[in-house]
Amino acid sequence: MIRVKTLKEYAACVEKALVTYTSGDYVKNVPDLLVDAMTYSLKAGGKRLRPCMLLAAVDMLGGNSEECLAYACAVEMIHTYSLIHDDLPGMDNDVLRRGRATNHVVYGEGQAILAGDGLLSLAMEIMLKDAVEHPEDMAHRTEAALEIIRGAGVSGMVGGQCLDLDCERRHFGGQEELKAIELGKTCCMFMYPMRAAACLCGASEEEKKALEEYARSFGRMFQIADDLLDVEGSAEDLGKSIGKDEKSGKLTAVGVYGLEGARGLVDEEMNNALYKISIFGEKAEFFTDLIKNMRGRKK
Amino acid sequence: MIRVKTLKEYAACVEKALVTYTSGDYVKNVPDLLVDAMTYSLKAGGKRLRPCMLLAAVDMLGGNSEECLAYACAVEMIHTYSLIHDDLPGMDNDVLRRGRATNHVVYGEGQAILAGDGLLSLAMEIMLKDAVEHPEDMAHRTEAALEIIRGAGVSGMVGGQCLDLDCERRHFGGQEELKAIELGKTCCMFMYPMRAAACLCGASEEEKKALEEYARSFGRMFQIADDLLDVEGSAEDLGKSIGKDEKSGKLTAVGVYGLEGARGLVDEEMNNALYKISIFGEKAEFFTDLIKNMRGRKK
Repeated sequence: MIRVKTLKEYAACVEKALVTYTSGDYVKNVPDLLVDAMTYSLKAGGKRLRPCMLLAAVDMLGGNSEECLAYACAVEMIHTYSLIHDDLPGMDNDVLRRGRATNHVVYGEGQAILAGDGLLSLAMEIMLKDAVEHPEDMAHRTEAALEIIRGAGVSGMVGGQCLDLDCERRHFGGQEELKAIELGKTCCMFMYPMRAAACLCGASEEEKKALEEYARSFGRMFQIADDLLDVEGSAEDLGKSIGKDEKSGKLTAVGVYGLEGARGLVDEEMNNALYKISIFGEKAEFFTDLIKNMRGRKK
Repeated sequence: MIRVKTLKEYAACVEKALVTYTSGDYVKNVPDLLVDAMTYSLKAGGKRLRPCMLLAAVDMLGGNSEECLAYACAVEMIHTYSLIHDDLPGMDNDVLRRGRATNHVVYGEGQAILAGDGLLSLAMEIMLKDAVEHPEDMAHRTEAALEIIRGAGVSGMVGGQCLDLDCERRHFGGQEELKAIELGKTCCMFMYPMRAAACLCGASEEEKKALEEYARSFGRMFQIADDLLDVEGSAEDLGKSIGKDEKSGKLTAVGVYGLEGARGLVDEEMNNALYKISIFGEKAEFFTDLIKNMRGRKK
């Protein structure tokens, strides 16, 4: 049996491919300033979770992850564009991300908007270029690109961001709104890349659905764990608050469900994810390990 | 011989299809607020030049324009997203467009950013959905989507906007910079949709190139005529200025070439466009009429 790659090993493949797709011939007609602004945020790092999960799913399904790097990088570019736009003064107005100045602080608001637009466009371009260059496998690859843009789009991530911003500005929302925001804003960019992996491998509907549902639970657990990390250590029981982060007005799981409720949901979603992925048996080792590690992560 | 449709007739088809793609099942999982914000700008009108030219090229090449509405609408959605982002405070900071309040004035800056992101995503989604739903013709359709995103992307429209903003902020630039800005920001969203039309019809490379070159000259003429309309009637000869719109610092053709120089370029580009499209003979009536009408347009 082939040894399963680790998250770090997949992440190294993604890093290398991201450099390829943002240098040389790939950007030969692109203004240097735009390349700089896009790569500034792309290089800001993070765990590259979303593209790594896509690659690991491809290998689990018997595909060749080395051939799917365009789709993995597209997912990371889309994630990065969403962070750049999210940080803008008109949205969350954040000046720091992962300890570095945010894109608009360095390049100005206008160029940051364009860096985000550019990353989304480039993501689509590298996927479709790959699809067109592989006529023998174009159907699978075009379907994969469609899944990814669906996850990123108006019924996915962008839709979730719209709801999130709207609830925050209107100081409005409860469990129903929070679930819709988590699903759109966070889960979709796990779910649809996993569906894309299934498309790339010509997997069955049952397998595609199992991957999607693992990713949905993974994404929700990930978001709620993040909310918990933001408040744990605080003496105040935010469970008694009105359901929003007092400072920003943002809806959070801790605000809506309380500390204990949120902790319970993390375990519930982890168990659900483990159950969904179990149809792949031992081959799912990457995904069972991943969710257990995420469960115990610290900021 | 089939009667050639007019610009107005094509525009009516585009309007109808835009309503379809932004209502009913197409947006059933999309927040109402996002649909509202996207359609507010989509409905703000204009001549729908870019999608109409794509449809007219398809008919000229012997294709069926009725089957290519997804691509035409995608082009208009991309054009609209670029206007929404262009008008933002961090970019041109315009509060009016075509006599109506701009998107961010009505919906707020954050939602306007998302409306733009949403339109770009939706454009890609409707094209790829169309491609996947037509497996027998997927290669042509996927190639068409790739052409459109190339025109919209980092080596096309977004690249041009980056240069434009950079020159404006630094009060920098001459003929070379202006040409690169015109090409990226304006021409590409005429050229690549025309290339997409050629892909959709399986046209020859020669035909594709002729359409692209017509569109390049058309786009440049269109942009320079626009710059002229902005200043004609003014007593001042801006040809003596330093090459930029004195108010905004934006590079314009009148600023760089002077009034007479810019007028000469309009005729030069029109004649070049007419020459390029002449390989299609009488079938090119739509395009020969269009450019002559554009030449004489008033604001």
